[in-house]
Amino acid sequence: MPLPTAPATAAFEGGCAFADGAYVPLSEAKISLFDWGFTRSDATYDVVSVWQGAFFRLDDHLTRFFASLDKMRLQIPHTRAELREILHGCVRAGGLQDAYVAMVCTRGVPPRGARDPRLAQNRFYAYAVPFVWIASREKQREGIDLHISLRQRIAPASVDPTVKNYHWIDLVQSLFDAYDRGRDTSCVVDADGHVAEGPGFNVFMVKDGTVHTAASGVLEGVSRRTAIELCERLGLPLRIAPVPVEAMRAADEVFLTSTGGGVLPIAKLDGVPLPQFPGPVTSRLIDAYWAMHDEAAYRDPVDYRA
Amino acid sequence: MPLPTAPATAAFEGGCAFADGAYVPLSEAKISLFDWGFTRSDATYDVVSVWQGAFFRLDDHLTRFFASLDKMRLQIPHTRAELREILHGCVRAGGLQDAYVAMVCTRGVPPRGARDPRLAQNRFYAYAVPFVWIASREKQREGIDLHISLRQRIAPASVDPTVKNYHWIDLVQSLFDAYDRGRDTSCVVDADGHVAEGPGFNVFMVKDGTVHTAASGVLEGVSRRTAIELCERLGLPLRIAPVPVEAMRAADEVFLTSTGGGVLPIAKLDGVPLPQFPGPVTSRLIDAYWAMHDEAAYRDPVDYRA
Repeated sequence: MPLPTAPATAAFEGGCAFADGAYVPLSEAKISLFDWGFTRSDATYDVVSVWQGAFFRLDDHLTRFFASLDKMRLQIPHTRAELREILHGCVRAGGLQDAYVAMVCTRGVPPRGARDPRLAQNRFYAYAVPFVWIASREKQREGIDLHISLRQRIAPASVDPTVKNYHWIDLVQSLFDAYDRGRDTSCVVDADGHVAEGPGFNVFMVKDGTVHTAASGVLEGVSRRTAIELCERLGLPLRIAPVPVEAMRAADEVFLTSTGGGVLPIAKLDGVPLPQFPGPVTSRLIDAYWAMHDEAAYRDPVDYRA
Repeated sequence: MPLPTAPATAAFEGGCAFADGAYVPLSEAKISLFDWGFTRSDATYDVVSVWQGAFFRLDDHLTRFFASLDKMRLQIPHTRAELREILHGCVRAGGLQDAYVAMVCTRGVPPRGARDPRLAQNRFYAYAVPFVWIASREKQREGIDLHISLRQRIAPASVDPTVKNYHWIDLVQSLFDAYDRGRDTSCVVDADGHVAEGPGFNVFMVKDGTVHTAASGVLEGVSRRTAIELCERLGLPLRIAPVPVEAMRAADEVFLTSTGGGVLPIAKLDGVPLPQFPGPVTSRLIDAYWAMHDEAAYRDPVDYRA
């Protein structure tokens, strides 16, 4: 499918979407009420960040998105090169230096009366909006209080967690649990009571210098992978294995990883201060995370002149 | 919120939606790409049928919808009486005698950059479209071949199944499993390997004259309840308890219940013909189901003259 010419730099204030083959203002980015992407949450997506004018690890996000499409039996009418061009176009049109950029594919709308997903034409959407932090920078400094909800993350036997998906009722309800208790955000557990993930982030802990994070049943976040790679670079002992809730409550440091902020330190677990905030290991990873944004291998600069 | 006047009968060909406070043609029924109802499937809904000019068990569906809203901490800007009026208005405007009528509430769009669902204004949608059958009448006569997928239905510990929700990736993927094997539709199991439900229906079996269906971990479908009530009326022995897959494979009869067709007989399980199709118990329930549509207590006639 030939791509339309991207709008001029900053043509759309505050962001830009690409919907049904055209660049549009965010307010016009809509999907049909009858798209299975809504009525069955039959969709996959990915989110990549733009920081100081360059995409960070765009290739890794594109690879994961195409893998998710395959697993979901979804197809987009664009090549990888075209997809890259569309995402760049959205950022440029929004005139954004720091952005949160999403690519989305939905099942689409089957013919009237049909209930066969094979008959639907899959739909592709993308958008770039100003960078979204999992928690505001003020809250990050003040210290995030994380609630460990005993709600169970949807099991891998039901929904493949390696396919980035919108099945978030469990996560959103855990947020309400957190707010009810005066906490800032939440994570949920798996069926065995091990720490799983939170709404938009993976969870890590540090104990006696070793970094721990869940091995499976969680999103294979690109930021999670970045943190793991940085542990290896920095020579930090790392253990990727189930993390019991009690182990996390006894941790020295806890941090989150997310495209929405990278590595974010946690100050308290259910109101109880952690021994170290921000801890020395977390601080090293935060510094390394942002320094990595300057490495050419991970940068894909946006051309704002086009 | 004052309701707009509903359009004249059959003002909109093929159906009518109610979105953001106005009656609109189906093609204009859209939601924002940024509504958490899409990006987190943070929504609940209900579906009621209109048959031969009258809603069937509308009160029961309204009661369940408002209960779902409470459990999800969602609110709509309409009273129960207004909601009823909107649904009638959609059917009337679509000029539909037999309709599938949905009411939907989404979390809405939080303020830019916010990730707190409490800050979003919840959105309400409704629509009426021509009656949708779970399987076509030809396929019903020919005989539906049901695949029992070993995919697990999302567990109640993650998502409350009594809240009608759009978390259907497991169900949609099980449909692909069914098509891969040449079957017509599918059901999934719970974590213990008991029969759960299918995409849009509950599952029943009959063995030695006793009707069996799952006790929990499934949608408390209004059609399921109707079938249960009809068993009681007809004096059919009924057992509401976990149904092992092996027990269902050894059944005399199997049927589905859904707003999209009431009681539907199954002919084959994974290609193996059931002993009785349509079986005598299933046939009695089908007749009783449609006869019940004439009972005043369950009918809410649409006034097409308005």
